Amino acid sequence: MPEAGDISADEFRHAGHQLIDWIADYWEHPERYPVLSRARPGEIARALPASAPEEPETLDTILRDFEQIIVPGVTHWNHPGFLAYFAVTGSAPGVLGELLSAALNVNAMLWRTSPAATELEEVTLDWLRQLLNLPGTFSGVIYDTASISSMVAMAAAREAASPGVKTRGLAGAPPMRVYCSDQAHSSIEKAAITLGIGREGTRTIPSDAEYRMQPARLREAIERDIAAGDRPIFVAATVGTTATTSVDPVLEIADVCEEFGLWLHVDGAYGGTAAVIPEMRWVWEGVGRADSIVVNPHKWLFTPIDCSAFFSRRLDVVRAAFSLVPDYLRTSESDVHNYMDYGVQLGRRFRALKLWFVLRAYGREGIVDRLREHIRLAHELEGWIQATPNWEVAAPVPFSTVCFRYNPPGVDEETVNAVNLAIIDCVNNTGEVFISGTRLRGKEVIRLAIGHIRTTEEHVHRAWDLLQQAARAVNAG
Amino acid sequence: MPEAGDISADEFRHAGHQLIDWIADYWEHPERYPVLSRARPGEIARALPASAPEEPETLDTILRDFEQIIVPGVTHWNHPGFLAYFAVTGSAPGVLGELLSAALNVNAMLWRTSPAATELEEVTLDWLRQLLNLPGTFSGVIYDTASISSMVAMAAAREAASPGVKTRGLAGAPPMRVYCSDQAHSSIEKAAITLGIGREGTRTIPSDAEYRMQPARLREAIERDIAAGDRPIFVAATVGTTATTSVDPVLEIADVCEEFGLWLHVDGAYGGTAAVIPEMRWVWEGVGRADSIVVNPHKWLFTPIDCSAFFSRRLDVVRAAFSLVPDYLRTSESDVHNYMDYGVQLGRRFRALKLWFVLRAYGREGIVDRLREHIRLAHELEGWIQATPNWEVAAPVPFSTVCFRYNPPGVDEETVNAVNLAIIDCVNNTGEVFISGTRLRGKEVIRLAIGHIRTTEEHVHRAWDLLQQAARAVNAG
Repeated sequence: MPEAGDISADEFRHAGHQLIDWIADYWEHPERYPVLSRARPGEIARALPASAPEEPETLDTILRDFEQIIVPGVTHWNHPGFLAYFAVTGSAPGVLGELLSAALNVNAMLWRTSPAATELEEVTLDWLRQLLNLPGTFSGVIYDTASISSMVAMAAAREAASPGVKTRGLAGAPPMRVYCSDQAHSSIEKAAITLGIGREGTRTIPSDAEYRMQPARLREAIERDIAAGDRPIFVAATVGTTATTSVDPVLEIADVCEEFGLWLHVDGAYGGTAAVIPEMRWVWEGVGRADSIVVNPHKWLFTPIDCSAFFSRRLDVVRAAFSLVPDYLRTSESDVHNYMDYGVQLGRRFRALKLWFVLRAYGREGIVDRLREHIRLAHELEGWIQATPNWEVAAPVPFSTVCFRYNPPGVDEETVNAVNLAIIDCVNNTGEVFISGTRLRGKEVIRLAIGHIRTTEEHVHRAWDLLQQAARAVNAG
Repeated sequence: MPEAGDISADEFRHAGHQLIDWIADYWEHPERYPVLSRARPGEIARALPASAPEEPETLDTILRDFEQIIVPGVTHWNHPGFLAYFAVTGSAPGVLGELLSAALNVNAMLWRTSPAATELEEVTLDWLRQLLNLPGTFSGVIYDTASISSMVAMAAAREAASPGVKTRGLAGAPPMRVYCSDQAHSSIEKAAITLGIGREGTRTIPSDAEYRMQPARLREAIERDIAAGDRPIFVAATVGTTATTSVDPVLEIADVCEEFGLWLHVDGAYGGTAAVIPEMRWVWEGVGRADSIVVNPHKWLFTPIDCSAFFSRRLDVVRAAFSLVPDYLRTSESDVHNYMDYGVQLGRRFRALKLWFVLRAYGREGIVDRLREHIRLAHELEGWIQATPNWEVAAPVPFSTVCFRYNPPGVDEETVNAVNLAIIDCVNNTGEVFISGTRLRGKEVIRLAIGHIRTTEEHVHRAWDLLQQAARAVNAG
């Protein structure tokens, strides 16, 4: 008798309950796992069969292999010792929301293919807009990543600057130019590449001593391009840059954008979330004048990857840049959002559900408390660094990320760089925490980003101990 | 005391077990739910508060609202009566895999940010490659959707045709041209729009009486464009078009592509999966000569949305089209895949895990059995239609999707169209099944796509009964 149907409900229940317990244990005992995986390249692949099985395997077998083969190869992002990249927490409420999304398996491409997915997307985005203190003129779309959100913004700018470019394409037109600081996320340059504007079309504006875009230099670059016959269309300002979390002066950049009629996109993928905290609203100054904004709940808002919230005052332009409705997707409803019209992807997961779970399970106050605590921990660490000889803070700390370095006297720059890289490796090899580094104007610095929901002062303190131990060890070696 | 940390492990366990049971019940009793939601526009949004709560809410409260407010607004894609769009099954093993991905919350951007995610992606794609009978020269990447997979393919074609376009952009270059049949998915045109090639850059090649691209017309179009000074770069052939599931003659199209040096992309998002079945391998003829191929496990391979498998013989060109490595993501490992180099998105979910669960839980034989059964059911329905007066099959049925119409004698075309649209609405209003329609050369036809893992002969038979009843009712009315 050939196989049909799914596995039995009993088998699903049994395995599902097992997994819920496994996950609860996993989160309760992160100390069992080295944060950065110790796997060697090829090790996981070699432990797996070369082909799919001919016959069905039981879920018990699959779960056993998951634990024995996959887990040792996991770098544990959902771990309180994960301090390497922007805070990515798959929180308990968020994971339950994701479980339900998977079970419903809805494609939120058209309103009618799931009214609840479309309307919950509208509602949760409006909740988030209010939490972020954005004007009611902004409305939004949930995309997968900030890379896509920023690309969509740039595509809208392209269409706004040259209506009909969607139809005609870019050939034969004057070269378009987009602007961001030398600290902007690589996704801005990638968007320019993807959209046919090219890497050379991306003008990198120098940042100041505190890694913020210099509006005067932006104006110069725009004027230079206009004089050369190029077509400036788009500026990306960043609230919380990737390397140092610096905050571009959005208000002054908005002035420049208005003067030249350019689309202003604000990348607040990480830092924008801080605007939920009343005393952090300053990071958002001028943002109401942006044409579009991205904030990623999967970065610092406890939502499992992926969930990127895009807001715009000009969603009609976004729609104009992308909308195409084939015959097999015509529907009769009017006055509803068919979100597939606002982007590249036709297939759209029901991402609003997990965001709704997160916003409700913590509430505004719970979110504010947690973000405040992360910022407090970062300032604690900053204080310890400042108070310790031979260590220095490498950039201002506006949010929950600290860039710093070990800088003993009388050592040449090249050696200091090597020492800091060695310290990072040494700390990461302990498995207790995972930190990253970046290069700032030729200097290798250590980068510690706080934001996991279960990270406490103890974790940050332990990281600082490990860093100091590593510095001693590297020095002695 | 301000809130910190996540909700308690006990609360997670309690809600998690509840949800697993809810999901099992949900799948066991699909008859409780109308497949197409009966919600009116705005109804769900109005049932929700205007703002996020100030204070935390319990998971019990959230789950209650999920059941009472959200579920009635869901169109049930994961339902055996969902026959409207290509088979989207969130199968039990796939959902469990997705649950674990959410709990681990890994970002598979770099090998080191999760060796297991990267290597399992390599391994499961190679398993799938073998299942699909693709040559070992193909290797792959998992993207979110076929829209992105096809856009990536076109971007690679753009770079291959004009090396350095990534740097220079498209301005000043001759207009690029891409080709697909008039039956191709809208994502091809959307990719051309996004990449700056434009809608006008997309040449739509007429299909034959069976909705297959005509290679002679393709050659003519290419020659015409070359004569006009344009730059042909890319052809998308489709194996299983969206409207009728027709199969383009890939072999002959490959000849044309080789003659003119164009990138051949095969969109097998739905139909490609059938190549797992030995007697269906014919759909794949010539595919080994494609430059890239996309097959979506989230369509007809029981994997929850999203999961799109992209294969290419020229992954180096894909990398060249996109790769950019910022300082904060430099890593020391060589000879490993950093998958972020192969696309737009830096953030990448651990999608291989659910695919691995699916491939193992059913095994090759289990998958073949299920797909064969879907094709058998489609042919059953085709037979019933052919045997019934006043009904006709509107297109060949190579896979598991049937296009057909009610066509009583002596009725003008406009009325027949209206009648078929009315039949679709009437059937969908029963809530028992959800079917779609499309327009084929001016004719409104009914489209019934089989592919949910729990769809049985009973569901298809019931759909057919409802269709006949609806035809009688519409006629009588």
